Amino acid sequence: MWAELLPIGRHPDSKGYRRYAWTSADAECRDWFKEQAEGRGLTYEVDRNGNQWAWLGDPAEGDAVVTGSHLDSVPDGGAFDGPLGVVSAFAALDELRSRKAPLNRPLGIVNFGDEEGARFGLACVGSRLAAGQLTVEQARLLTDGDGVTLPKAMAAAGYDPDAIGADPERLARIGAFVELHVEQGRALDLSGDQVGIASSIWPHGRWRFDFRGEANHAGTTRLADRRDPMPTYAETVLAARREAELAGAVATFGKISVEPNGVNAIPSLVRGWLDSRAPGQEALDAVLDGITRAAREYADAHGIDLDVTRESFTPVVEFDHALRDELGRLLGRDTGLTVPVLGTGAGHDAGILSGSVPTAMLFVRNPTGVSHSPAESATEDDCVAGVRALADVLEGLTRR
Amino acid sequence: MWAELLPIGRHPDSKGYRRYAWTSADAECRDWFKEQAEGRGLTYEVDRNGNQWAWLGDPAEGDAVVTGSHLDSVPDGGAFDGPLGVVSAFAALDELRSRKAPLNRPLGIVNFGDEEGARFGLACVGSRLAAGQLTVEQARLLTDGDGVTLPKAMAAAGYDPDAIGADPERLARIGAFVELHVEQGRALDLSGDQVGIASSIWPHGRWRFDFRGEANHAGTTRLADRRDPMPTYAETVLAARREAELAGAVATFGKISVEPNGVNAIPSLVRGWLDSRAPGQEALDAVLDGITRAAREYADAHGIDLDVTRESFTPVVEFDHALRDELGRLLGRDTGLTVPVLGTGAGHDAGILSGSVPTAMLFVRNPTGVSHSPAESATEDDCVAGVRALADVLEGLTRR
Repeated sequence: MWAELLPIGRHPDSKGYRRYAWTSADAECRDWFKEQAEGRGLTYEVDRNGNQWAWLGDPAEGDAVVTGSHLDSVPDGGAFDGPLGVVSAFAALDELRSRKAPLNRPLGIVNFGDEEGARFGLACVGSRLAAGQLTVEQARLLTDGDGVTLPKAMAAAGYDPDAIGADPERLARIGAFVELHVEQGRALDLSGDQVGIASSIWPHGRWRFDFRGEANHAGTTRLADRRDPMPTYAETVLAARREAELAGAVATFGKISVEPNGVNAIPSLVRGWLDSRAPGQEALDAVLDGITRAAREYADAHGIDLDVTRESFTPVVEFDHALRDELGRLLGRDTGLTVPVLGTGAGHDAGILSGSVPTAMLFVRNPTGVSHSPAESATEDDCVAGVRALADVLEGLTRR
Repeated sequence: MWAELLPIGRHPDSKGYRRYAWTSADAECRDWFKEQAEGRGLTYEVDRNGNQWAWLGDPAEGDAVVTGSHLDSVPDGGAFDGPLGVVSAFAALDELRSRKAPLNRPLGIVNFGDEEGARFGLACVGSRLAAGQLTVEQARLLTDGDGVTLPKAMAAAGYDPDAIGADPERLARIGAFVELHVEQGRALDLSGDQVGIASSIWPHGRWRFDFRGEANHAGTTRLADRRDPMPTYAETVLAARREAELAGAVATFGKISVEPNGVNAIPSLVRGWLDSRAPGQEALDAVLDGITRAAREYADAHGIDLDVTRESFTPVVEFDHALRDELGRLLGRDTGLTVPVLGTGAGHDAGILSGSVPTAMLFVRNPTGVSHSPAESATEDDCVAGVRALADVLEGLTRR
């Protein structure tokens, strides 16, 4: 099952995956999902937003247990982020069947469309639309780098863009959603556990820092006469690292745009984007305050104008405590061990759904901690442990 | 004369000039030059490399005195860099005629093609070709951002690209070349002088710094697990500023390229270009050593690979001392004042020609010191003083 999925959308040079929403690589992944569903005799359907579902039992009965993740990728992403959750869902269902587990509730497997947002710049479009967290009007304006809108891309892939919109009835039938995901950090590697349970998704913001100075000749302008925004940007990057360390948070300047960006020109504008996340809102505020203060101080001393604009913000997502505790009990049942509970800095469809449905997440150990890169990894042994844990959870939840 | 040139190639939004070699804006500037030459009854000619010449007297007599500069611009450049030297040349010739100065040597005015290198990335192409400092083979490989080669661009502008090449006979006829240029710094403003004489062009190099780390998820990768090249780049930018200050030099990181350049991605590669110039070779070496040492130290401590590549280098250009002293005598003759002699960090056609011809430069005060920007300026009074100084120099040199 895993082997069939592996070659799809893999770039021969980078060895990374380029499975962007509504492209041919995405279509191949979706065909794979349909085959897996039908091959197991599950009821296959596509919802109004293009998310794929496979059902054992009739979801109309309600209080369904659903698991799954996504199959699309970031540019040159790894093999596990998303697909591990979908493959493990099918494998866990196989495991439940071989255990002859009684299924007293409908069991669903889902592949949410466009989770990574690699093509249209917004993450979790499929789950956001379903949960009503993205309006149809907003979705219609989404445009990729080639100027193709989301409706055009969906239509080209054979889906009806006029159908998209909130899907409260579908979500109301779900009693519990559990997403399994490869860990995007090294907490499990450090604690020596194969599997963990999510506590929360850290609050997360993106800010644009515009440093404006004055374009000038790099060869003839005395240092004292310069209004060069690049050293102020540099000072701000180092402040970000320092403040994040102090707060136990993360802060990254990963994207930059410089004008005029010429070797012999002092820049008139350096625009840097800060991505920062922290275990709690207070810590995130402290990080941003510290960075902004350092940036302003240096900017004022060097004649640089600074504008800081918040481009996006997602508050902390606390996963359903009752479901989380139940997962802990189900997983510790046989072993008596405590399964570690950890926060995560990454957004997920589970985070979106948590506003509408009791939601939980399982993480599988990633020994490198690397994510969004071909170096992302998980051992076969840990993946099997993940499938077993997911099967235990699904068995416990569907038994009720 | 100045008013006719002003609107050509001026961008309506930026108010900066976009007069790139062999474009229609360049052609308009060249038409203007031809009209100025013919309107004064001068002999007009274009040399094999597309440089324009206007002659009073027969250059074949040899030992000619030549003045001039260039009419092309950097992207969104100012009005004075280049054109002030050409306009002042024609105005000085008018002044000499009204003084009824005896002209015992041929007097030429030149507009060198493609001085700024804005289109093909190499500065002073016209003078380099003439002086044999750029081979025909190298010139044929020059390509602009749209993939148009220099020969194609020249042909499209109506010039014969097969004719280009070294022009030693033409240069051998020149006994002295004097280029007038707006100052690209504030030395004259600080000393309170309207006009100065160039001593030398500082040695100048460009280095590419490749900082390689590991792409990773900006939200989930602990700071301790990161190999983020951006802080190392930032540290290097601040080291450049510090080292340049220590050495009385300049050092600029004005161009950067980041991979993958995503808001939520730790970069795998940050590539920064350093432009540095200093009054002497020793000072430039010290600046580069200091920057490289600081960069390597930080890189080693943070798991970043660093490669430093020298992309170009021009050693110090000392202008002809005898000619420089003669200019000082000619300009101080009436007033008894000493005209300031200053170094410059910028390259010029005069720097290229100085290898073949006794060469000197005059600078006109620039109160803002700004260059390569629409904010570049010179007062009318200072421009008139520049023309008078150039006329004095030309009168003195042609009298011999």
